[in-house]
Amino acid sequence: MKLATFTAGERPCVGLVDDEGRVRTLRGVLGDAPLIEVIERWEELGPLIATASGLPVVDAPRLLAPIPQPRRNLFAVGKNYRDHVREFGRSGYDTPDRNVDLPSRPVVFSKATTSVTGPFDDIDAHPGVTSELDHEAELAVIIGPGGRGIPRERALAHVWGYTVLNDVTARDLQRDHGQWLLGKSLDTFAPMGPWAVTADEIGDPARLEVTSSVNGRPRQKASVADLIFDVPELISVISSGITLLPGDVIATGTPAGVGIGFDPPRFLRPGDTVECAVSGIGTIRNTVRAGTG
Amino acid sequence: MKLATFTAGERPCVGLVDDEGRVRTLRGVLGDAPLIEVIERWEELGPLIATASGLPVVDAPRLLAPIPQPRRNLFAVGKNYRDHVREFGRSGYDTPDRNVDLPSRPVVFSKATTSVTGPFDDIDAHPGVTSELDHEAELAVIIGPGGRGIPRERALAHVWGYTVLNDVTARDLQRDHGQWLLGKSLDTFAPMGPWAVTADEIGDPARLEVTSSVNGRPRQKASVADLIFDVPELISVISSGITLLPGDVIATGTPAGVGIGFDPPRFLRPGDTVECAVSGIGTIRNTVRAGTG
Repeated sequence: MKLATFTAGERPCVGLVDDEGRVRTLRGVLGDAPLIEVIERWEELGPLIATASGLPVVDAPRLLAPIPQPRRNLFAVGKNYRDHVREFGRSGYDTPDRNVDLPSRPVVFSKATTSVTGPFDDIDAHPGVTSELDHEAELAVIIGPGGRGIPRERALAHVWGYTVLNDVTARDLQRDHGQWLLGKSLDTFAPMGPWAVTADEIGDPARLEVTSSVNGRPRQKASVADLIFDVPELISVISSGITLLPGDVIATGTPAGVGIGFDPPRFLRPGDTVECAVSGIGTIRNTVRAGTG
Repeated sequence: MKLATFTAGERPCVGLVDDEGRVRTLRGVLGDAPLIEVIERWEELGPLIATASGLPVVDAPRLLAPIPQPRRNLFAVGKNYRDHVREFGRSGYDTPDRNVDLPSRPVVFSKATTSVTGPFDDIDAHPGVTSELDHEAELAVIIGPGGRGIPRERALAHVWGYTVLNDVTARDLQRDHGQWLLGKSLDTFAPMGPWAVTADEIGDPARLEVTSSVNGRPRQKASVADLIFDVPELISVISSGITLLPGDVIATGTPAGVGIGFDPPRFLRPGDTVECAVSGIGTIRNTVRAGTG
């Protein structure tokens, strides 16, 4: 099933997206419970949602990120598609020596909670803070049952669902600060959605395809099967020493075709519209605005 | 004032640490409100705490981290004392070419919320996950009023208080994963406390001194005045594009004297006890245990 977080003028709540793409409110079933709580209580609430009937269609819902206020930073993975490792290395934004070696271990960083924004909200260009704004379309995993030391064979049983994430990046900050947290975490740098799709509806995530476009022109396209470290491996590696929690988000990495893959780089400008999509999930679309900085 | 989070067999609550180091419960004033909520409502609750009288002394309190469950990952800063930059560079754990250049911008990463543990709790050695466990004594800043675009001249007005943090690090993971999140975030890798001291009691943080010892032998010692990027600068840089929130923690960096500063490195072993202290705040003491991994 597809679950969205939406508002229609009142407090945000969770809705079920039907086969026609309409949002049907679950307020009568879940009250104001945010999706993160629904995920924590999934064994109890999942069946209630699955058997609910006669859910009212919401008129003109505004979709928010499925998890608008995560309980901690999003996990995110860098350099996880071969062709992107090469474009990133060649660009000089990773290492000055333009090293294009594949990583031997997953490159895991985080994005601050306050970077999360809605699937159709604007991306703040943060003028005065960055002048090298770039997009990264990604499949994001949402953890269900938490745990530590999860073996890769059982990892997919810990996935509650999936969503689409644009891992927006300030390339200058990413390079200049050495560690990527700041360059990845500016406010509005994690558009997510348009909804979350439960794991049962996806099956094997490796069959999904990630794409993006800027102003309608195709930029990125890859199969999730091309991940260097696949979804089970990422869950296993992260959880080896860190207890994963229900509602944790893991953005799995971006394919080749980002702005710094071009020579000269093609950074995003105010007015540009980026679409990021994952097959079987949906498309998010965000326009860059100049902001007030 | 000094505020601690403690438990005495019941739900954790906030206590006031008196001049004799005794914990006096504030449950009668604050109920079960966690410190993070007290910080958010400081204008209202601070005066209540300051004027409370006859607070009962708690018998045998167990001190927890002042903020046991942060609302998002801790911000943390690497390579922020000159001598530590040199020892880290020379060790080969930062870059293979043993570069010892000072950073031109703050190196900011994060530590997962689940790494937080109490001021006298054990550090899990995570056998099978890391074999290169190291300590990093640090002054940690706790944000009061949040905001974005905070100028350095006004930055200290956004500090609610300070505490001591051991930025425990798995050096092998820090090196091998490129980005530091995993090596910095294993469960129990952020002992904090023993309490938080409000900013008014500290004044200028640059006058503080950070020290550590392992099994009673001195390891680290530096003045906070030696920070490459000082507290106001860190707040200004981080908040330039990221909205800081009440209760956010910023660990400001560690001085020279960590385990990889020795040749060969002196990693922590099960049974070792690490003390980290900041003058004017207090001392945390944590013993490494073998764990079950």
